[in-house]
Amino acid sequence: MTERIYNFSAGPATLPEPVLKQARDDVWNIAQSGIGILEHSHRGPSFRSVIEAAESHCRELACIPDFYDVLFLTGGASSQFFMVPMNFLGQGQTADYLVTGSWSKKAVKEAKRYGEVHIAASGKDSNFNRIPPTSETRHSKDPRYVHFTSNNTIFGTQWPSEPEIPDGAFLVCDASSDIFSRPIDVSRYGLIYAGAQKNLGCAGVTLVIVRKDLVQSATEDLPTMLQYRTHAKSGSLYNTPPAFPIYVMGEVFKWILDMGGLESMAEHTREKAKLIYEFLGNSKFFAPFADANSASLMNICFNGPDADSEAEFIAAAAKAGFSGLKGHRSVGGMRASIYNAFPREGCEKLVEFMKSFERSR
Amino acid sequence: MTERIYNFSAGPATLPEPVLKQARDDVWNIAQSGIGILEHSHRGPSFRSVIEAAESHCRELACIPDFYDVLFLTGGASSQFFMVPMNFLGQGQTADYLVTGSWSKKAVKEAKRYGEVHIAASGKDSNFNRIPPTSETRHSKDPRYVHFTSNNTIFGTQWPSEPEIPDGAFLVCDASSDIFSRPIDVSRYGLIYAGAQKNLGCAGVTLVIVRKDLVQSATEDLPTMLQYRTHAKSGSLYNTPPAFPIYVMGEVFKWILDMGGLESMAEHTREKAKLIYEFLGNSKFFAPFADANSASLMNICFNGPDADSEAEFIAAAAKAGFSGLKGHRSVGGMRASIYNAFPREGCEKLVEFMKSFERSR
Repeated sequence: MTERIYNFSAGPATLPEPVLKQARDDVWNIAQSGIGILEHSHRGPSFRSVIEAAESHCRELACIPDFYDVLFLTGGASSQFFMVPMNFLGQGQTADYLVTGSWSKKAVKEAKRYGEVHIAASGKDSNFNRIPPTSETRHSKDPRYVHFTSNNTIFGTQWPSEPEIPDGAFLVCDASSDIFSRPIDVSRYGLIYAGAQKNLGCAGVTLVIVRKDLVQSATEDLPTMLQYRTHAKSGSLYNTPPAFPIYVMGEVFKWILDMGGLESMAEHTREKAKLIYEFLGNSKFFAPFADANSASLMNICFNGPDADSEAEFIAAAAKAGFSGLKGHRSVGGMRASIYNAFPREGCEKLVEFMKSFERSR
Repeated sequence: MTERIYNFSAGPATLPEPVLKQARDDVWNIAQSGIGILEHSHRGPSFRSVIEAAESHCRELACIPDFYDVLFLTGGASSQFFMVPMNFLGQGQTADYLVTGSWSKKAVKEAKRYGEVHIAASGKDSNFNRIPPTSETRHSKDPRYVHFTSNNTIFGTQWPSEPEIPDGAFLVCDASSDIFSRPIDVSRYGLIYAGAQKNLGCAGVTLVIVRKDLVQSATEDLPTMLQYRTHAKSGSLYNTPPAFPIYVMGEVFKWILDMGGLESMAEHTREKAKLIYEFLGNSKFFAPFADANSASLMNICFNGPDADSEAEFIAAAAKAGFSGLKGHRSVGGMRASIYNAFPREGCEKLVEFMKSFERSR
């Protein structure tokens, strides 16, 4: 087995090595069935036990109440941008959106097709380097739901906790980039969605956790595949699901449980992020991008004194075995994404490298 | 590496062993990048070379003309059932559907939401055991497109070649279960779609081959993710694509090329199917389900004298290492699915087993 490097990619992102090793075996022959995980009928007992275990481990991890459906869908979080309003927002209804970056903006664009969209808060004026505080939030009169993005990969900001919402509304969260990195009180949400490829597995499946009463009351006059109802009724097996991405997600859930669950993930996450933010706070060369109160524990965005030094740093880091540190094209600078599976050792090594780079200047 | 068995599953289905072995390596570390295929950013050079190679091998295999887009989408063929009419069928327009089984019926149901659907032919009267001949086909006056299902997994029937269509219409094909099992003249089609998990790879990606002028003229007032235009413009990278299923599809394309391409696949396919159909033709115990002129070379459906003997046969076969022979619940009996990757040896062994089962009765 050849050597692996530190992968700071914002997603798809590094996965736990025990999961990769298990996947290698199971691609050839899973559970001594004589057939690999890619090749099993989705209606057969082998895959059924895979998807059932994935759901039950998910429920266990996040203490998901029975009155929520856990769905494994396709199309990425980008498809949830339209599926949420398509299912829940009728003409004459308003949804409130808290805009904290590029992903929220895309969600707003798709929602406008179905009903009124009210921007209840926006971080645009400060180039999204902070999460707008409650004092700046102005809800509409009677919103159907309030949508927010719990962590913003591009700007490296994160909601410290859920926003307050008006009575009668339900909370919808794009949690793609920080789901299961800390405990979550699912009962505060109407619907949570998350693409798998950051904290939960590989690209190709989207986890949706949604209150059953909402699923049942959603719009019916829609294509079969675009109704949450369809997938809820069939246990995500209405048609052939993305079997391998679901399998990987299930293995990641098991790994998180083995690591001690969400409390333990939160502790690891805080420690890893602290290593890097403390260094940035003391550096005279590097500076964090996000406001301290809003800084993401998942995506640490930072800058050098100028674009040339940044390019030099990124190139030197890549040469030294630190991959994926280039910031998103819309922000520039650097970004270290350190999701659940990213090892603490990699954060320590990065800080050492940054120190020595700074000294060499 | 433990032993594998003969997997006759109708999909997800058996994959070429060289592809599985390569995937095992690449899950840990692809192309000496130090990062596995599940973990690479979809915007980085490693994945870019994967998706570009997948597209170019696909084009090479099927001699796809430049005026077609090759797209890697999600949602399965089931999502194409609505995406095709959503993009191409306007109010007041009619689409003709050739109904040859359960999948065509589902496609019809979704299309009715967008325009008029005319059933130009149907195999319903004979329980879909044959493909309706041209003499029974009645097209509408000016159909926008004609939709057919090239191979019917459930009933084990297959179109011997493309249906003729009226001038001015374009041909749409759900080719999920026989794509690239024989040469295909892409220029006869407006749009071809295929879920990967039968002939092309693992579940989680849908191949769409579509004429560029159709993509450009399609309805614009749709969610971004549901427009072919979006994916055509971005090379299937508008959002994070199902990276691993695309990777596997690319490896399967390479394998088909290595095996000699589509002519060679067709020859293998004919030989494999002949082994089983010839035995069925001579058997006094087993009988093929489909009409000989319409019999599928991919899914060979057959019956025993009664349901009890069939159950006995399926159980004995499973014990002997032949998995997935149970017919679909809506037809009963047995089904041997022998897609591209299914080895000839497995067909020979199955015939031996059936002979000895018949002798023992």
